[in-house]
Amino acid sequence: MKAKELMDIRRQIDILDQRIMELLNKRMEICLKTRRFKKHIVDLKREEEVLENIRRSSYHLLRPDFSERLYSLIIEESRAIQQMDYKLIGFQGEHGAYSEAAILSYRPELVPVPCREFKDIFDDIEAGILDYGIVPIENSIEGAVTYVNDLLIERNLVIIKEIIIPVHHCLLALPGTDFKSLKAVYSHPQALAQCRNFIMKHKLEPKPFYDTAGAAKMLSEEKPEASCVIANRLSARLYHLSVIRENIEDYPSNSTRFIVLSKDPLDEEGDKCSIIFSLQHKVGALFSILKIFYEASVNLTRIESRPTKESPGNYVFFIDFEGSNRDEKIVHMLETIKENTTTFKFLGCYKSAKRGG
Amino acid sequence: MKAKELMDIRRQIDILDQRIMELLNKRMEICLKTRRFKKHIVDLKREEEVLENIRRSSYHLLRPDFSERLYSLIIEESRAIQQMDYKLIGFQGEHGAYSEAAILSYRPELVPVPCREFKDIFDDIEAGILDYGIVPIENSIEGAVTYVNDLLIERNLVIIKEIIIPVHHCLLALPGTDFKSLKAVYSHPQALAQCRNFIMKHKLEPKPFYDTAGAAKMLSEEKPEASCVIANRLSARLYHLSVIRENIEDYPSNSTRFIVLSKDPLDEEGDKCSIIFSLQHKVGALFSILKIFYEASVNLTRIESRPTKESPGNYVFFIDFEGSNRDEKIVHMLETIKENTTTFKFLGCYKSAKRGG
Repeated sequence: MKAKELMDIRRQIDILDQRIMELLNKRMEICLKTRRFKKHIVDLKREEEVLENIRRSSYHLLRPDFSERLYSLIIEESRAIQQMDYKLIGFQGEHGAYSEAAILSYRPELVPVPCREFKDIFDDIEAGILDYGIVPIENSIEGAVTYVNDLLIERNLVIIKEIIIPVHHCLLALPGTDFKSLKAVYSHPQALAQCRNFIMKHKLEPKPFYDTAGAAKMLSEEKPEASCVIANRLSARLYHLSVIRENIEDYPSNSTRFIVLSKDPLDEEGDKCSIIFSLQHKVGALFSILKIFYEASVNLTRIESRPTKESPGNYVFFIDFEGSNRDEKIVHMLETIKENTTTFKFLGCYKSAKRGG
Repeated sequence: MKAKELMDIRRQIDILDQRIMELLNKRMEICLKTRRFKKHIVDLKREEEVLENIRRSSYHLLRPDFSERLYSLIIEESRAIQQMDYKLIGFQGEHGAYSEAAILSYRPELVPVPCREFKDIFDDIEAGILDYGIVPIENSIEGAVTYVNDLLIERNLVIIKEIIIPVHHCLLALPGTDFKSLKAVYSHPQALAQCRNFIMKHKLEPKPFYDTAGAAKMLSEEKPEASCVIANRLSARLYHLSVIRENIEDYPSNSTRFIVLSKDPLDEEGDKCSIIFSLQHKVGALFSILKIFYEASVNLTRIESRPTKESPGNYVFFIDFEGSNRDEKIVHMLETIKENTTTFKFLGCYKSAKRGG
C-alpha cells in the first residue's frame, strides 16, 4: 500500500519534470527568437527584470534564494545558446510532427521551432525571427495544404528546397502496454484514414485528434486507458512511448512533399522552379502559356489551378518545372510568360528532392 | 515595430517563467508528500532515476549538461525542504482560494497544498500524506458544503479548529487596465451572485468559472480582452493582478465558516464540540435529545438535519455546542446522548472562532 502510494507520487513528479523540461525548451526557443531584435546578447536590464519577476513568484515552497540561483543558471545557458549560430526553422504543429521529422532528415543542425499556424511561419520569416520554414505542399497527413498554397500566393517568400518523405505510420503506446489490451487509437483524421485497414482488422476505435504529435504528447501526459496513437518514430522518442507496430499504413507508397521557405533566394544553383500566375479569362489563355513551355522543351512536374479569393471565376495557376533560373533559356522563357499573364510571381529556384540534401 | 515584437516575445517568456515557477512549487509540494513513505530523505537510487529521466528529455535546445546541473540544484533544494519540519494542510481548489487565505490568517507557517476534490483532502490526511485539511462548512463561496458534511459522516477525521472569515470580494484586472474598458467579469457562480448589484451597476457581463482563484490564474495566463475577475487579495498577489475595486459584495456582513481537520484530536483543551448522530424515526426522538442538552444547560450553536444516503426517510443530525470534552458534565451528557441514539460520532472538541487563533 505505502509502496504503491510512493510510486504514484513519484510518477506525478516524473510527469511534472517532463512538463518543466518542455517549458524550458520552449523558453530557449523563444530566447533565440529575440536575437534579431537585440544589439547585444547580454542585456543586464532585462536579466534583472527576469530575476525580479522570479523573486516575486517565489511564494510558498519556493525560497527566493533557490529561485534566483536556478534562474541565474537558466539565464547563463540562454546567453550561451544565443551566442551559438543556430538557424531556426519553423514548422506547424507540436514537437514530433512529420514536418519536424522532415527537417531532421534534411539538415539536422537546424533548430525546429513549433508554430501554431502556417500563417505564423510566414509572419516570423518575414519579420526575421525565423531563418526558414518548412510546409507540406502535397498529400500531407497534417492537411491544410490548400491554406499553404493561398499563403504562397499572398506572401513574398521563396522556395529554397524540396523534400519528399515517405509516410510511415507507427502505432505508439505507453511502455509496457500489451497490444491485445488496446481499444482506442488517437490521431489526426488523415493518419487514421491512411491506416483504416489496420484499425479495422484489430477492432480499434479511431479517435480523431487535432495533431499526430499532439496525440502522442496527450497519451504520455494523460495516459488514457487501453489507448494508443498513430504517429512517427520521432514522437515515440520525444514522448517516451514504445513503437509497438511499424508501417501500419494501407498504401506503403504514400509520401508527402515539403518545401523549405526563406526570405532570400538560394545562393547556389537549383534544378527546379515554381511560379504562380493568373490569366485573362478567355479561350486558349492557358494553352498559349503551355505552348511557351513546350517550345522551350521544359518539362513540367506539376500544374494546378485555384480559384482566386478576390474575383470568383478567375483562376491562379501553380506550375513547377525542371530547370535553373541561371540558364539563359529559362530566363528568356520566364520573360515571355510574364508578358502573357496578368499577374506573375517567381516562387524560387531550388534543389529538387530527387537530387537529395 | 521591432520594439513591439521584442516586447511580445518577452511577455511570452514571462508567462513561461510563471508556469515554470508554478510547476516547481508543485514539485516541492509533491516531494514533501513523499516524506511519510521514506526511511531516509536521501534516496540516491531515486535521485539517479530522476537525473536519467532528465537526460532522456534533454533534446533540442536543452543540452544534457545544463539540464543535469539545473536538476542537481532542484534535487538539492527538495532535500533541504524535506528536512525542514513543514506541516502540510490540504485545501480544495487552486492556489489563491478563499480556503487558502483562511489558512494563512490562522497559522501562516503551515504549507497549503491544493487538492482537486474535498475527498482528496480526507484521503490524504488518513494516509498520513497531509497533516491537516481545511474545509468550508457554512456559506462557502466555493460551494459544495453539503458534500463536506457527507464526508464528515462517512470518514473518521476530527475537527481541531474553527475559523470564520468575512467574505470580501475584490475586482482584479491585469496591471494597467482601465476600469471603464472592462466588459466581462469571470468568477465562481456564487461569487458572481454575491456581487450582483455591483455587476449590474457597472454593466459587466458575468462569466461563470469553476473557481475564483482559477479565474484569476486564467486571466493572468490567457489575458482575455476587456476582462476582470472577482477573487481575493491573495489571488491578486499570486497571479500578479491589480486590485481595482475592493469590498464589492452586496452584503458586507457575509462570512464563511471553515473547520480544520486532523487524524488526531487537539492536544489542548477546546471550547466547542461537534457531534453527528442518527435516531429512530419516531415522534419525540429529537425532542428527547434536545432535552438532554437543556437539562445540562449546554448552549447549542448549530443544528442541522440531513437525509441519510443509505435509508431514505431517515435523518442524520449535526449538532455543535459550547463546552469542552474535558469537562465532567459534558462527558456525562455525551454518554447519555450516545445511549439514546442509533449511531453516534464525536467529531472533536476544538477552539471556536470567537476565541481567535
